[in-house]
Amino acid sequence: MLRFELLRTEGQARRGRLTLNHGVVETPIFMPVGTYGTVKGVLPRSLHDMGAQIILGNTFHLWMRPGLDVMQSFGGLHGFEQWNKPILTDSGGFQVWSLGAMRKITEQGVHFASPVNGDKLFMSPEVSMQIQTTLNSDIVMQLDECTPYWQGDKGSGHITTEAEARVSMELSQRWARRSQAEFARLENPNALFGIVQGGMFEHLRQESLEALVEMDFPGYAVGGVSVGEPKDEMNRIMAHTPHRLPAHKPRYLMGVGTPEDLINGVANGVDMFDCVMPTRNARNGTIFTRYGDLKLRNARHKADHQPLDPSCTCYACAGTAGISWEQGGPDHGWQGFSRAYLHHLDRCGEMLGPMLATIHNLHYYLNLMREVREALDAGAFAAFTARFHAERARGV
Amino acid sequence: MLRFELLRTEGQARRGRLTLNHGVVETPIFMPVGTYGTVKGVLPRSLHDMGAQIILGNTFHLWMRPGLDVMQSFGGLHGFEQWNKPILTDSGGFQVWSLGAMRKITEQGVHFASPVNGDKLFMSPEVSMQIQTTLNSDIVMQLDECTPYWQGDKGSGHITTEAEARVSMELSQRWARRSQAEFARLENPNALFGIVQGGMFEHLRQESLEALVEMDFPGYAVGGVSVGEPKDEMNRIMAHTPHRLPAHKPRYLMGVGTPEDLINGVANGVDMFDCVMPTRNARNGTIFTRYGDLKLRNARHKADHQPLDPSCTCYACAGTAGISWEQGGPDHGWQGFSRAYLHHLDRCGEMLGPMLATIHNLHYYLNLMREVREALDAGAFAAFTARFHAERARGV
Ligand SMILES: [Zn+2]
Ligand SMILES: [Zn+2]
Repeated sequence: MLRFELLRTEGQARRGRLTLNHGVVETPIFMPVGTYGTVKGVLPRSLHDMGAQIILGNTFHLWMRPGLDVMQSFGGLHGFEQWNKPILTDSGGFQVWSLGAMRKITEQGVHFASPVNGDKLFMSPEVSMQIQTTLNSDIVMQLDECTPYWQGDKGSGHITTEAEARVSMELSQRWARRSQAEFARLENPNALFGIVQGGMFEHLRQESLEALVEMDFPGYAVGGVSVGEPKDEMNRIMAHTPHRLPAHKPRYLMGVGTPEDLINGVANGVDMFDCVMPTRNARNGTIFTRYGDLKLRNARHKADHQPLDPSCTCYACAGTAGISWEQGGPDHGWQGFSRAYLHHLDRCGEMLGPMLATIHNLHYYLNLMREVREALDAGAFAAFTARFHAERARGV
Repeated sequence: MLRFELLRTEGQARRGRLTLNHGVVETPIFMPVGTYGTVKGVLPRSLHDMGAQIILGNTFHLWMRPGLDVMQSFGGLHGFEQWNKPILTDSGGFQVWSLGAMRKITEQGVHFASPVNGDKLFMSPEVSMQIQTTLNSDIVMQLDECTPYWQGDKGSGHITTEAEARVSMELSQRWARRSQAEFARLENPNALFGIVQGGMFEHLRQESLEALVEMDFPGYAVGGVSVGEPKDEMNRIMAHTPHRLPAHKPRYLMGVGTPEDLINGVANGVDMFDCVMPTRNARNGTIFTRYGDLKLRNARHKADHQPLDPSCTCYACAGTAGISWEQGGPDHGWQGFSRAYLHHLDRCGEMLGPMLATIHNLHYYLNLMREVREALDAGAFAAFTARFHAERARGV
C-alpha cells in the first residue's frame, strides 16, 4: 500500500507525507543506503536516534548473500535486519549491468555468473519482482536498464547517442510493463515504482515519462542521472523531468547527491533521495557540515577542540546531551567529540573514527531534509535556500 | 586519591568498592581496554549502557599518537576521549619491550626509536610518571620490566631461569621506588600502583611483594602472568600471589583472561582485571556466552534466528527493549539481532558485525562481574561458581 498526501508547495518544491506498510515518511526525505541489510558503520538504534524514516536495501546483494532461503525464513528484510520502519529496495538491475563481461543482456533478461560462487543466474523483471516480494520492502523498484552516460571504456568509448538512449529507454519501458504484471500476479501488498529513463535527451525523458504515467504506478523515479555526466547535464535533466511527473504521486531521484544537489532537487519537485555519499565519504574522512565540507585528515585539525560541525546536535558533535557547540561549548554541558579526537582516530585506523563520522554525515543529510520540511511548512523555502548557500560558503 | 572499602569476603574472594578521582568502581571488575583512547569498535555511550565503570588507556600508544601536546591541551585523556568515569593507564613498559631490536634497556631506562617516525626516544620511571600525569589517569602504573616466560626466539631460546627472573624483578623493584618518588614530586593527585614480578618463582614473587608492601602503594598489581606460560603455571601464580597482598588495598591481575580465568582470579582474591580478549575475539567472530564460546563463522549459524546468547540483555542480543530471548523471544517483544544476521554481516565484511559482537562480548564480561558481585553480596559465590561452570559446559 501507498498513500501520498501533498501538504504544501512553494514553486516546484513540495512538502508531502507518504504512508507505507511499515509507517509514515515525511517528505522531502533522504534515505540512507543499507546495501547488505546494514547501513555501513552505524547501529540501527543510531539511525532511529537521528530520525531516519526509511532506508534502502540492495536486491542484488541480498539475493547473493545471505540468499533468499534465509530471507524467507525471516519473513523478509525487516525481520532479518531488525528495522521496523519502511524499506525501499532497488531492482538489482544496476548491479547486474556492472558485472560487465560476466553478463549478457537479452530482451528476456540478463544471464550472468554469480560473483560469489560462479553459479549461472538469470535476472528478469519477473525475477526481480519475486526477490523483492520475498524481501517484503515497502517500495519496490521496476527492473530497468540504467542508461550510462558513457558507452564502453573511458579511452575508447563515446557518449551515449540518442539512438542508444532510445533503445535502452524502450527496453526499460517494456520491462516496466512486465514488472507491473508480475508484481500484480504475486499479489505483493507493497508499492511498485516506475523509473523514467532516456539519458540526457529531454524528448526521450518525456516519452518515457508519458508511457509510465499511462501505466499508472503509485510512484515514479528518475533514473540514469549521477551516472558520470557533467554536473550541468545532470541539472538539465533534474530541471526537466521531476516536475512533469504526476503531482499527486511521490517522486524519487535515484543516487543523488551532494547537499547542494538535494536542495536543487527539492526546488525541482523531488520528494525522495538516496546516495552513498554521506556514508562512503565518512569512511574516507570527508565530512559534510553546515559551513562547508571538512577534510578530517588535514593536519590543521590535529589539536582543534571544536566538533565537526559547531551547529550539529548529532551524537558525534554533541554527545548524548545533544547540546551543540554553538549552544554552549565545554562550559555549558557540551559533550561532543572534537575534530582533534576524530583526526586521531582516523590516523590510528580506529573503527570509532568512521563510526562517529558516519553518524554525523547521515545526521547532517537527515537534518538538512528536516530543515527543508520546516521551511516548506513555513512557506520559506526560498529564504532557506539562500541561507543554506551562504552558510555552506562560509567555510569550516 | 584512592579509597578502598572491603565490603565482604567469601574464602579469598572479595567484594569491594574503589573510590577514585573520577568516580566509584564496584569490585570485582573487568576493565575494557582502550589502547588509543578508544575501546575498539564501540561507542562510549554503549560502554556506559553496558555498565563499564573504568576503562584502560595505553601510555605508550597515546604518547606516540596524538602526543602529549594534544593531550595537554585537553587536560588529559578524559577530555580527549570524552570519558568522564575512571581511567587506568599502564606504564608503557610492555610496549617498549615489545619493540625488540629497536630498543636498549639500561638501569636508567630504555632507549628506543619511535615506531611512528623513527625519532630517538627515552622511557624511564620518571618519563612514564610524567606522561601518565599529563594523561591524568585515575590509576597510574609504575614502570616495570614485564618478565617474559620465554627468553629469545621460540626455537632457540629457553624458559626464563630463576637468575634471570631475579635480575628482572629487582630492576622492577628499583623502578618502583623511582616511580613512587617521581609521582610524589609531580604532585600527581591520582593513585599509583606497584607491580609484583618474579616470573614463575613463588619465592621471588614473595620477595617482590614484600618489598612493594614496604613501599606502601595504594594498590597492587600482579604482572608477568598471561605472558605465554602454560595455563597451570599461570594458575599456580594466581593461587600464590594475590591473596598475600594487603587485604585493605585493591588487587589488579594484569592482562587476564578468559571468563574461567576471571572466576578463578576472583576466587584467589583478585579485584580488577583487564584483557583485550572480549574486543579482539569479537572482531574475529569468537563470541563469549553463558553457555560456552560460539564461533560466528561456523556455517551452522547461517539461518539461526537465536541471538548470540539467549540469556543476554545487551543491545546485540536484546535490542533497545532489553528483553532477552529466554525472557520471551520474537512473540514477546524481543528485538535482538540473530546469529544468522551476525553471521551474514561477518561474511560480508560489514562493520556492524564487529560492532555488535564487541557490544555483546564486553557486556558478557561486565555482566559476569556484575553477577559475581551479586553472588558475593549474597554470600553465594561458591554456588555461583558451580553454576557458572555447569552453564559454560552446556554448549551453545
Ligand atoms: Zn554532527
Ligand atoms: Zn549479548
